[in-house]
Amino acid sequence: MDVINVVVVGYGGMGGWHTDRIRDMEKFNLAGVWDIDPARLEVAKERGIRAYGSFEEVLADDSVSLLVIATWNDVHKPLCIAAMEAGKNVISEKPVTLSVVDLDEMIAVANRTGRLFTVHQNRRWDRDYLTMRQIVRQNLLGGIFRIESRVQGSRGIPGDWRKEKGHGGGMVLDWGVHLLDQALTLCDDDPLESVYAHVTHITNDECDDGFYTELQFKSGLRYMVEVTTNNFIELPRWYILGENGSTVIDNWDLDGKTVVVHDWSKIDSVPVKAGTGITKTMTPRTAETIHEEPLEKVHGEWVQYYDNVYDVIVNGATQIVNHRQMRRCIALIEAIFVSAERNEVIRFDDRFYRT
Amino acid sequence: MDVINVVVVGYGGMGGWHTDRIRDMEKFNLAGVWDIDPARLEVAKERGIRAYGSFEEVLADDSVSLLVIATWNDVHKPLCIAAMEAGKNVISEKPVTLSVVDLDEMIAVANRTGRLFTVHQNRRWDRDYLTMRQIVRQNLLGGIFRIESRVQGSRGIPGDWRKEKGHGGGMVLDWGVHLLDQALTLCDDDPLESVYAHVTHITNDECDDGFYTELQFKSGLRYMVEVTTNNFIELPRWYILGENGSTVIDNWDLDGKTVVVHDWSKIDSVPVKAGTGITKTMTPRTAETIHEEPLEKVHGEWVQYYDNVYDVIVNGATQIVNHRQMRRCIALIEAIFVSAERNEVIRFDDRFYRT
Repeated sequence: MDVINVVVVGYGGMGGWHTDRIRDMEKFNLAGVWDIDPARLEVAKERGIRAYGSFEEVLADDSVSLLVIATWNDVHKPLCIAAMEAGKNVISEKPVTLSVVDLDEMIAVANRTGRLFTVHQNRRWDRDYLTMRQIVRQNLLGGIFRIESRVQGSRGIPGDWRKEKGHGGGMVLDWGVHLLDQALTLCDDDPLESVYAHVTHITNDECDDGFYTELQFKSGLRYMVEVTTNNFIELPRWYILGENGSTVIDNWDLDGKTVVVHDWSKIDSVPVKAGTGITKTMTPRTAETIHEEPLEKVHGEWVQYYDNVYDVIVNGATQIVNHRQMRRCIALIEAIFVSAERNEVIRFDDRFYRT
Repeated sequence: MDVINVVVVGYGGMGGWHTDRIRDMEKFNLAGVWDIDPARLEVAKERGIRAYGSFEEVLADDSVSLLVIATWNDVHKPLCIAAMEAGKNVISEKPVTLSVVDLDEMIAVANRTGRLFTVHQNRRWDRDYLTMRQIVRQNLLGGIFRIESRVQGSRGIPGDWRKEKGHGGGMVLDWGVHLLDQALTLCDDDPLESVYAHVTHITNDECDDGFYTELQFKSGLRYMVEVTTNNFIELPRWYILGENGSTVIDNWDLDGKTVVVHDWSKIDSVPVKAGTGITKTMTPRTAETIHEEPLEKVHGEWVQYYDNVYDVIVNGATQIVNHRQMRRCIALIEAIFVSAERNEVIRFDDRFYRT
């Protein structure tokens, strides 16, 4: 079996994460790391990892065929382009870059050089996402008309470069890109028609420390994505509404349940007291017309991401996280910032879908 | 003490509710009811309530000074106007009418005749609303930046006239008007800048069976209002976010809690596993920087509504549910339908605030 030699560029939090996993995989060999911070290179050496002397040294190493770019977001573009021009395949950490214009330049280089160019959307393999997706695909709830996807923290914007606009900080570009990629991947063949978004600046002026976005797909599906960092009580991770039932997935541990109605015709509604009034419309259902089901938990095989990267490079397989999807996601992120800035609904057109 | 003679016009669900309560109040006397349905008049007689022979007979009864209009929504306007022209004071059930143009005609008649003209926004006295409001006013969470107000049922659109557009059916005009009035009353001196809304038609084509709306106030507050009828698992009734804490009120029984951070400076975040990745940003807080408080439940004195009606009529007091507020709420409802129809953000201007 061919083993692919990899260098991780940017040996911070995610860079360390990649090196650990690359060392575990038989198909890949960690050739070394490079970082602009000499202290990080020292850490690498202490861990028995080769520290390259410069980015140029990495590019010049003909034994290396794959780079993982895990730097600040604002330098993904020049590093990815330089790598591909030097004949390397590239995995970029997310977000792949900060604008569609920049991404188009990167895709053009990938097409011209024929190198692999992809982004590490690892959360397509998150168990909570896969569990949600299976419920949708198995049609467990009937026609799905709304999905709400939330990640809520309570620590404000992180204190590192993620609060700096120049480096591509903020929650839209950090957690947002994951949740938006999940939405777009679930609806891969369903055109996105419009987005309405607003961002928050509770703990930070420079970058958004949270955002809310309402997506409308051509099928009629409404999909709400929220990432927030000032929430001391959390709402569920997933809330899924179908014509005949609802599912809640509370957290990453997959607590939650599904409730399905099995008899729409049976009327068991008697008015109940609600505040100062009465309501028949909002009377909770009794057990005779609904049943509750536990979640069928779906396991996520994250290694499929690197397996696919290997198969693309060695066997010419089809890339899972592909250019069209990468472009769609960055286009959506651009639209979110425009929507929030103008307080307007942004409609998608060919500009956003051209690949 | 002067006792005010009242006739309830429309002896359906809410009409019956008003007659029961009027009979309990010393300041008011139930003179009788009128309904276009003879069967309902028979029910009234069986209960020992005088059934008037016609609406004209009610108007001609000089002993009657207050009418409660509890009919279909589409006939509130002619009935209220006829009543005021005949010298009667008027409480209309909500929604007071279906458009700002119609409401302006009604307000003009009220101003010309000098009669009381108000709408029964009883849910301003709901305990859950008052409990939320006290948390906001006591500044328990620091600056409030977002409020989410949800009422979720699972029975679809009701089977009666509430699913008929001609009678002013649908959830925006039914439960929506309550939740929107609550929002606008909480923010009575905070101009509404914009609204984005969409409506659902899951169980009904003619009228909306649910809606989502995102309000932006001039202060910066974002306020989300949702009424839905196809949700088999419920999210909390209230979700309130402040700079230093969050409150959840789960239901009308006031289950819930507040969590407040008392030490922003202390960093206790260690990365946790979340799906296929790790996160420091979303690590839950540990007990050392936050504390949890039970809800301080506020009791609602709904009778204050009728007490105020009495004081306005007898003592010239200031009307609690006033014309400006009524107009603002109907203007918002109009804007919600326009926003949903066009999939656009609607901005408010003088047209919506003129009274």
